Amino acid sequence: MRTPPSLVSLAIDSALAHLSNISDLSFLPDHILIDLFLKTLRAGKLTEKILKLFIATGKEEVLSHIEALNIQLVLTPVLPTSKKNLRMSQIIDDNDVDIVIGALHPDLTSFLDEWRPVFSRFHLIIVKDPDLKDELTIPGGFNLHVYTKSDIDKAVGSASTASLFSGYSCRYFGYLISQKKYVVSIDDDCIPARDNNGGLIDAVAQHISNLTTPATPFFFNTLYDPFCKGADFVRGYPFSLRSGVTCALSCGLWLNLADYDAPTQALKPGQRNSRYVDAVLTVPVRTMLPVSGINIGFNREVVGPALLPALRLAKEGKFRWETVEDIWSGMCVKVVCDHLGVGVKSGLPYVWRKERGDAIESLKKEWEGVKLMEDVVPFFQSVRLSQAAVTPEDCVIEMAAAVKERLGPVHPVFARAAEAMVEWVKLWKVVRTQLSP
Amino acid sequence: MRTPPSLVSLAIDSALAHLSNISDLSFLPDHILIDLFLKTLRAGKLTEKILKLFIATGKEEVLSHIEALNIQLVLTPVLPTSKKNLRMSQIIDDNDVDIVIGALHPDLTSFLDEWRPVFSRFHLIIVKDPDLKDELTIPGGFNLHVYTKSDIDKAVGSASTASLFSGYSCRYFGYLISQKKYVVSIDDDCIPARDNNGGLIDAVAQHISNLTTPATPFFFNTLYDPFCKGADFVRGYPFSLRSGVTCALSCGLWLNLADYDAPTQALKPGQRNSRYVDAVLTVPVRTMLPVSGINIGFNREVVGPALLPALRLAKEGKFRWETVEDIWSGMCVKVVCDHLGVGVKSGLPYVWRKERGDAIESLKKEWEGVKLMEDVVPFFQSVRLSQAAVTPEDCVIEMAAAVKERLGPVHPVFARAAEAMVEWVKLWKVVRTQLSP
Repeated sequence: MRTPPSLVSLAIDSALAHLSNISDLSFLPDHILIDLFLKTLRAGKLTEKILKLFIATGKEEVLSHIEALNIQLVLTPVLPTSKKNLRMSQIIDDNDVDIVIGALHPDLTSFLDEWRPVFSRFHLIIVKDPDLKDELTIPGGFNLHVYTKSDIDKAVGSASTASLFSGYSCRYFGYLISQKKYVVSIDDDCIPARDNNGGLIDAVAQHISNLTTPATPFFFNTLYDPFCKGADFVRGYPFSLRSGVTCALSCGLWLNLADYDAPTQALKPGQRNSRYVDAVLTVPVRTMLPVSGINIGFNREVVGPALLPALRLAKEGKFRWETVEDIWSGMCVKVVCDHLGVGVKSGLPYVWRKERGDAIESLKKEWEGVKLMEDVVPFFQSVRLSQAAVTPEDCVIEMAAAVKERLGPVHPVFARAAEAMVEWVKLWKVVRTQLSP
Repeated sequence: MRTPPSLVSLAIDSALAHLSNISDLSFLPDHILIDLFLKTLRAGKLTEKILKLFIATGKEEVLSHIEALNIQLVLTPVLPTSKKNLRMSQIIDDNDVDIVIGALHPDLTSFLDEWRPVFSRFHLIIVKDPDLKDELTIPGGFNLHVYTKSDIDKAVGSASTASLFSGYSCRYFGYLISQKKYVVSIDDDCIPARDNNGGLIDAVAQHISNLTTPATPFFFNTLYDPFCKGADFVRGYPFSLRSGVTCALSCGLWLNLADYDAPTQALKPGQRNSRYVDAVLTVPVRTMLPVSGINIGFNREVVGPALLPALRLAKEGKFRWETVEDIWSGMCVKVVCDHLGVGVKSGLPYVWRKERGDAIESLKKEWEGVKLMEDVVPFFQSVRLSQAAVTPEDCVIEMAAAVKERLGPVHPVFARAAEAMVEWVKLWKVVRTQLSP
């Protein structure tokens, strides 16, 4: 004869059956909470929502159980869910992604701890700014590879290290030596942002979603990216254009400190970006945009060689808003994407950008870059590549020649940029050959 | 000696002092509620939030007071607030705006009651579908003008009434006879939407905000419309392009039933748009978009003649998803805007679109329009107007000639569309001359 169940165990069973309707567990005595937690686990009912319910109790014993069992909160990426999208969005392997971090600060502890739930599944390439003297401090628990000045020197020679990879540009070394299909790069002054519901945003999953669903650069969809969950093509969108093209670049955005230039920061020191715009969109063909290198993902196999360090100002690279190398690189890659018939998306994911730098100080220094845009933008808007350019390497070489010819006479920085583009493609070819199996 | 205050009056004074902390007044006895309301008024403390608190009680006596005093809930438009924007956004007069409603249904009571807080400040032009037999039912309290078949016949002749203004196209008659600078047009199956915080969206204020702040069609701003509150130009945006150009057209969106075509509706009958994207953006120059006529605002003085009924299919016009006249009109106006150097914005405001029609029924009918897009889109993407075209009327006449020449041979509907465009411009000129003082 079986022992009849206790009243407590019946109550726990009943709670288990109705767990999805319960919004607070903190009033439960510890031992009942633990019992309920273990039964939930055994019943296979530990969903994300329910895990949050247990975490929200704040009870030591439950939290230590969760830790001991290494239960991780699965972050919800915004992945397309319709039948069409499931078909089109490839299931990608974590091994297809490299996270590239340019280390401008020696202590990466808090940065990596904040990103741990997002980054820990992936391989990390950390490139230490060759100008940074202090040793890097990196917390454990990651699958990563660190490249320092001596590694870069060995791979490309110390002259190239100095001319291409100092300051923020060190991340391009990561792009160069990555062997993965997709690269996601996030600056070390950013932490994960939260969406309108307070949920942690998995920036990597969103970049990968953007990159693995088609882009639609040839006609504007007023409901934004039709491959996002719940979205579609609006009435009037030509059916022949609905299959879209490969998305090669995903440009994410920034909450808190948005990516403003020094004049804007100086004029509006209190301005912060708090507007969470829940959208991704394809930037139309032949439309130029100011790509920021702070938070991007790209398909390295399709456009890798077009993301390059080229336009550099004297003394630049340490403070974000003096930097223009990523703006130049962004227009360069957009021209290449337009020429190769692939797409660029902008919008989600957001990252939370922390405070840094002093706008007034930056303004005092030269803001040459801001003025250069007046020549740079019309150039990229009008440059056209030949049919002979069929790879991103070809495209960059053609564009370098056009830069030298049309912008070279305007300012010496442009001639140097053209040389850097040629040097970069040479390096790319050499390093890729060395890396290929 | 003064009479000492009663306990009730002391309590009311105390409530008045703490009104901003009170979230519910419905428990108060009616006479105390009225007293509190009148004291709030006298104290100058009737803010929007507090007015809502009183309205939320649902008490007859309070509501009739509010009505008797003609107190209106001021809806909060999303207006730019930075110094730059205050300077650029013109303060516009309610008399500069016409709301145009095409009446496809005889009973407009619930439609207009829903929109009362938004529409009641403005002049309404209601154009009754000439094919609609029943008398219109229109609630009181609006400043409006109704145009029926006989009015349209008188103004343009019965042949033009039949060829241009039946079904959904009746709204174009409103565009034709409006004498205001701005026109906002919203379909009679839409009601005000709510934002992410549950606040009622003032679609008119948002359209006017979009139209009175500059558009930026020549370079993409990744933070969306830089003239929206809290937004700005991102690093790398050329300063020479930051003043923008006049915004001529504002295309709003739809929650609930999005504007999908019949095949999409039939394939995904349960699909609803619940994604509130808190953004406005300028559609880049030379990028075509599928404009929907459901929820738009435009600057009639700048592009009025380019919003026209032209492409019409047999038996079309009654069900939204068979209609292509607005898609055609939208590409036409986009080409004109690009040529004249003015801008088109898309995004906010949303309206809530109610259920209508049967997708399967629509699919059974011909969906000629869907197929026509394959010819229509490449035409509008490539058509270029001459320097001689300096007014929207000129532009439409030039485009009509190009339609006749390049699309006429493809399908007879295009030849008819070209004729309608010419007819429209003739009408526009005649009617404008008659209306001018």
